[in-house]
Amino acid sequence: MDAISVIRTKRDRGRLDDGQIDWVIDAYTRGEVADEQMSALAMAILLNGMDRAEIARWTAAMIASGERMDFSGLARPTADKHSTGGVGDKITLPLAPLVAACGAAVPQLSGRGLGHTGGTLDKLESVPGWRASLGNDEMLAVLADVGAVVCAAGDGLAPADKKLYALRDVTGTVESIPLIASSIMSKKIAEGTGALVLDVKVGSGAFMKTLQDARELAATMVGLGTDHQVRTVALLTDMSTPLGLTAGNALEVRESVEVLAGGGPADVVELTLALAREMLDAAGLPDADPAKALADGSAMDAWRRMIRAQGGDPDAALPVARERHVVAVPASGVLTALDAYGVGVAAWRLGAGRARKEDAVQAGAGIELHAKPGDTVVAGAPLLTLHTDTPEKFEGALEALEGAFTVGPAGTPFTPPPVVLDRVGPA
Amino acid sequence: MDAISVIRTKRDRGRLDDGQIDWVIDAYTRGEVADEQMSALAMAILLNGMDRAEIARWTAAMIASGERMDFSGLARPTADKHSTGGVGDKITLPLAPLVAACGAAVPQLSGRGLGHTGGTLDKLESVPGWRASLGNDEMLAVLADVGAVVCAAGDGLAPADKKLYALRDVTGTVESIPLIASSIMSKKIAEGTGALVLDVKVGSGAFMKTLQDARELAATMVGLGTDHQVRTVALLTDMSTPLGLTAGNALEVRESVEVLAGGGPADVVELTLALAREMLDAAGLPDADPAKALADGSAMDAWRRMIRAQGGDPDAALPVARERHVVAVPASGVLTALDAYGVGVAAWRLGAGRARKEDAVQAGAGIELHAKPGDTVVAGAPLLTLHTDTPEKFEGALEALEGAFTVGPAGTPFTPPPVVLDRVGPA
Repeated sequence: MDAISVIRTKRDRGRLDDGQIDWVIDAYTRGEVADEQMSALAMAILLNGMDRAEIARWTAAMIASGERMDFSGLARPTADKHSTGGVGDKITLPLAPLVAACGAAVPQLSGRGLGHTGGTLDKLESVPGWRASLGNDEMLAVLADVGAVVCAAGDGLAPADKKLYALRDVTGTVESIPLIASSIMSKKIAEGTGALVLDVKVGSGAFMKTLQDARELAATMVGLGTDHQVRTVALLTDMSTPLGLTAGNALEVRESVEVLAGGGPADVVELTLALAREMLDAAGLPDADPAKALADGSAMDAWRRMIRAQGGDPDAALPVARERHVVAVPASGVLTALDAYGVGVAAWRLGAGRARKEDAVQAGAGIELHAKPGDTVVAGAPLLTLHTDTPEKFEGALEALEGAFTVGPAGTPFTPPPVVLDRVGPA
Repeated sequence: MDAISVIRTKRDRGRLDDGQIDWVIDAYTRGEVADEQMSALAMAILLNGMDRAEIARWTAAMIASGERMDFSGLARPTADKHSTGGVGDKITLPLAPLVAACGAAVPQLSGRGLGHTGGTLDKLESVPGWRASLGNDEMLAVLADVGAVVCAAGDGLAPADKKLYALRDVTGTVESIPLIASSIMSKKIAEGTGALVLDVKVGSGAFMKTLQDARELAATMVGLGTDHQVRTVALLTDMSTPLGLTAGNALEVRESVEVLAGGGPADVVELTLALAREMLDAAGLPDADPAKALADGSAMDAWRRMIRAQGGDPDAALPVARERHVVAVPASGVLTALDAYGVGVAAWRLGAGRARKEDAVQAGAGIELHAKPGDTVVAGAPLLTLHTDTPEKFEGALEALEGAFTVGPAGTPFTPPPVVLDRVGPA
């Protein structure tokens, strides 16, 4: 077996057999297959595709490259959520304690943001004292005690994926449904959850720009989870405009706490409840009532215990950026578009995200929205507030926002798209 | 400008513009674009192609990555030949001194063999004392004095191609007509020859398996040469069976000397004369008579001076392998096939070629043919003689020869393909 013959097979539109896949993933993890060979293979896969059996074997080989966690000793059933990434997507923050408050255990291994979509760990790190890195024993203890833990995935889970993901990021080979699906699912299956709900974002602020691509990705991932005995379901959700009214780390924590307190923007509440119901249902708890857990304070209690268990102070003031700049409504009428991608790039440029893995993020940076598509707006009133510690960043952020919003004449009929566009369950 | 945006352009079937091509070639040569990025781009080019303008710019950028030689100070017009590589292709050895004897100067920068096709430098190195490495001044002096020089290309010519060629070799991205054409032509144009004849091989023993692919490669290269003011023409020649009666380094030198002495196999003589006439014509010497130069000994004189000028002894005995194994004719009849690829792989396995760049070759190893397709053969008579210093290699060589020859019943009508299949000149 050698790398060139594996590359040639896929280059020439052939199927990779099980032996080729097992070998190339293992040899790449060990460093025997070089980065330049794997990137050529990744480009051939991106352009020529993989069939369902190839994707399943590729995923299994990435799982086999590392350790697999086991939560079967917990008293509660486990359920996890994964989002493909969007602008203002803070849903994990209220969702994990909410589902824990309803009786499931949520082992949420999360990542950091790269590019215009934020990362859950970056957001939680704006809570003073909170630590993302836990050892396996510590993680299990928090999970057993609180019912929810959000932490960084250890190096032992799917190391082949970790290496391949970093490679794809610099070689223009990210946008491949087989590679995206196998990357997500290898980590989630290795993590050992019993049930998994996928939030597949669709629209300008998401990887998947069309409902058709999102449906294909969702079906591929649901198939992979089901094949590995993980009860898996996917919701396709709108990402044409940011979720909620904030994009940025501390700003999103604040909004999440509002949701846990029984308030918060309607779209964030709706999506949090929809995902919670799917997770509880998949975990075998169909009678749990997440709306009640939001209303009666039990979800907020779980949040406070979860933050404290990882060193954070839920009562501490959140960081605030030093500088603000207000973008005013240009003309009175109806806001008919507020583009997720433009807002995401602007928030990223303000310091909420990072350009390279080594960069630090600003906890207070980001954007507040004062209106959502469909709202009536008045000329001169604030539309967006930009936050940053480094005012020289305003110019780049404002450039990203050029053309990102549209105001139609008063009375323009406009119906925002639904939050949940579709649901994909096992075939 | 960044590598990912260039990769994405080609991945998404776009055209690379001049700025993208100039930047990516320069940045790759300087090490700013990483190997794993260039291999992803090479795979995207292999699968999605480049148009004529892109190939021209890519070639120009590779030429611009290094120095360009200049032979305009020579008294004679320059003409060079490049073969895309075949089994038993020793043509450069008689051709260079023959064309020199007819009045042109032949600056032949050659390579070493890799895989089943042999390299001109490996062949000449079986002549005791002969050296492949010359400095630029030494090369010019031999060229001015003898009229022909065969030596290794210096590191200064098209360094981008040198780096990219090595990368393509290990990443399954060799078989791309745009990349093959730009690789060959960037070196040949940088070498500074005024006229160039391309020998594009077609058949089992060649890169190009079909006449259609060979014609496309030839037309692409002729267009590139013409655009750079090099008078360029291509012959498409048969490589379904080995050229001549030998494949292997010293064996091929012996056969070349036979041709220079006025003898040798008919196909080698025919192709040598056809290429010589094209080179002389392109060099502006249409009245020269290469057949006369073979017959009157002037080509042999030029050979002896060329070998001596690079330290070789044209009168020394050539190396002979220590062990031989004869493959007999299995049944009497007509030899209807003797496959170039099978013979090439067998000769390579006997030690005539190398698997890795660092390997040494055996000067005496290789295969002698005792019949050619179309010949009448008698059961039990020798068909092939295998030569090697390491008899444990016979087994692998014999495996490669399984199914590589076919003997039909006596009287089977069989006409071998012509040596020269077609000619491609400037459009």
